[in-house]
Amino acid sequence: MKQAKLIIADSEKDANLYYATQFLAPDSFIFVQVDGKKILLMSDLERDRAKSQAKVNEVLSLSQWIKKAAQRAPRGSSFLAAVDLLLKEYGVTSIQVPSNFPLMHGDELRQCGYEVQAQNDPFFEERTIKSEEEIQKITQTQRSTEQALEAAIQIIASSEIKDNFLYAHGQPLTSELIKKVLNVSLMGFECVAQHTIVAGGKDAVDPHNEGSGHLRAHEPVVIDVFPQSAKTRYFADMTRTVVRGNPSDKVKKMYQAVREGQEIAFLRIKDGVDGQAIHEEIMNYFGSIGFDTGEKDGRMQGFFHGTGHGVGLEIHEPPRIGQSSWILKTGMVVTVEPGLYYLDAGGVRLEDMVVVTSTGVKNLTQAPKVLEV
Amino acid sequence: MKQAKLIIADSEKDANLYYATQFLAPDSFIFVQVDGKKILLMSDLERDRAKSQAKVNEVLSLSQWIKKAAQRAPRGSSFLAAVDLLLKEYGVTSIQVPSNFPLMHGDELRQCGYEVQAQNDPFFEERTIKSEEEIQKITQTQRSTEQALEAAIQIIASSEIKDNFLYAHGQPLTSELIKKVLNVSLMGFECVAQHTIVAGGKDAVDPHNEGSGHLRAHEPVVIDVFPQSAKTRYFADMTRTVVRGNPSDKVKKMYQAVREGQEIAFLRIKDGVDGQAIHEEIMNYFGSIGFDTGEKDGRMQGFFHGTGHGVGLEIHEPPRIGQSSWILKTGMVVTVEPGLYYLDAGGVRLEDMVVVTSTGVKNLTQAPKVLEV
Repeated sequence: MKQAKLIIADSEKDANLYYATQFLAPDSFIFVQVDGKKILLMSDLERDRAKSQAKVNEVLSLSQWIKKAAQRAPRGSSFLAAVDLLLKEYGVTSIQVPSNFPLMHGDELRQCGYEVQAQNDPFFEERTIKSEEEIQKITQTQRSTEQALEAAIQIIASSEIKDNFLYAHGQPLTSELIKKVLNVSLMGFECVAQHTIVAGGKDAVDPHNEGSGHLRAHEPVVIDVFPQSAKTRYFADMTRTVVRGNPSDKVKKMYQAVREGQEIAFLRIKDGVDGQAIHEEIMNYFGSIGFDTGEKDGRMQGFFHGTGHGVGLEIHEPPRIGQSSWILKTGMVVTVEPGLYYLDAGGVRLEDMVVVTSTGVKNLTQAPKVLEV
Repeated sequence: MKQAKLIIADSEKDANLYYATQFLAPDSFIFVQVDGKKILLMSDLERDRAKSQAKVNEVLSLSQWIKKAAQRAPRGSSFLAAVDLLLKEYGVTSIQVPSNFPLMHGDELRQCGYEVQAQNDPFFEERTIKSEEEIQKITQTQRSTEQALEAAIQIIASSEIKDNFLYAHGQPLTSELIKKVLNVSLMGFECVAQHTIVAGGKDAVDPHNEGSGHLRAHEPVVIDVFPQSAKTRYFADMTRTVVRGNPSDKVKKMYQAVREGQEIAFLRIKDGVDGQAIHEEIMNYFGSIGFDTGEKDGRMQGFFHGTGHGVGLEIHEPPRIGQSSWILKTGMVVTVEPGLYYLDAGGVRLEDMVVVTSTGVKNLTQAPKVLEV
């Protein structure tokens, strides 16, 4: 039984395919890994560019292989016939595909007689362990993110307070404006920021609410930015929470608790530790000081998301530090982002990115943590 | 046999899921359409936001359904057990899934006894026909694109020529700089432009090469911009080709031919016409005036991509105007983008977006077409 790995996807959307080939294309193409060789079947449109850019052993012409396959036994979708022919030439009988491999292609390949097995993530185990070069790329994106965030927080810090609302240059200071400042300045660093969160008040109690409208004084504003470098394709991810004016005692305590939550993670994370245990310890700590989690008044409140996730070519990738078991390993890059959310206080979240080491963590995030601005 | 539609994906990446729910989330969630009802199974993190934002009939708690399912028959992946339970409560026996539905989930659902059928695109037939509102959103993105492009072309037009290279304010004018101008100004319009193409010389002979380095005078620069509105999620797509200085006779002829190619499409496109016939007519026209297509000197040259593609929530979506048959219908929004590429001359491409009507086309693109700037 000879095995091959097969991906059929576009590498714009599919990080595994980009990881395997280092080649970006907006339309589906075919990747086969067999006998230690990486092979692409490319359309005429992309063939020449793939030849010069893709980090693979061979770039074949899809149209030529389709012709070849059609001469032998015309049937089914023509491009899968080309894949079939290529796999048969290598004597492949069993195919490993990623968990997101399309059912439609899987069915057709099984009809051709292959054993097709979808693998759980990570498809390439080594993708969870970042090389020095990858860590450098993530750090680069992070530095740009910090510069953009600093400018955004500066605008909030220098805003005026009138009737409990914020104003900049006499104009209402809105979530939308701060988001635009962040996204435009990140684009200036060739980083693409989407769905940036600048959420005050009740908006921030939904951790994925992007926030909208006029920002208020004296209540926490959660700023969560997670751009992807257009050049290197690596993401960064960070969150800060600030209050312009005077935070309530509850918000101050929440902020302090979230900082402590981060410290628990920084102390516990190291090679060989289970992320789940860390997540539970933070959850228990929050509970022990009165910050309970659960549904209240028809809304989830407390700490109801994971403590962290891997960051790399995807913004959310393995491992997770959360409710499922996951052993952390040296070289993983993960976020540490506990948060607390209550309808009567708003949201507080702090997020740094760290590299797991044999002895602990290396924090890639340099931005200060200051609640009152 | 009762049938349901099922999507398991994240709506950031999956346009069908966003189309069906109008709800954006970065992590996978579950969509079921049964008995004319749209139902979501959402994580605790996203449930409240989905309740307020998603255009569906019901938002269920995934964690509660997982618990319910575990009490009955614990097995397999817990979230699919929840899907199974929900489908059984509705008496579903057959599931329609999109072509990109993950094989892994498909296999597990089949083990639960369902007939699972992957559908060819378009999964929602109605997605190819744009409503007035959708056309307005696409047009909005297009207007921002035109403004950004005008600024970029202005920089090229006002550049200085020294030793056959372009300079702006005494600095070398590069592809990278023009791309940054385009991408940053589009972000100012809340449009996310990625992989913008500003390609001169041989770069432009690969239609998907983004271009790099110092731009030259007297040779064509292909500028292809295709941003997505961060607000509406709708894309626009346009291409212009300019020469600063004096284009060669061949380039002038290529430009004229490509304009004629567009005109052929504008004349032919209307409700009921097959896109393939239009593509072939343009290809034949190019051949008839000496612009042949094929491999030469180890490179594809001539006109070796499609004439157009649908634009909407994805930059490339059905229909296609190209080598395969596709009947165009009133309300489809498609690009018209013939191009010619030769190693001894460079690349020329022009691209407009049009709406198919019962009598012809309505061109959504207003930007002028001027070769020499």
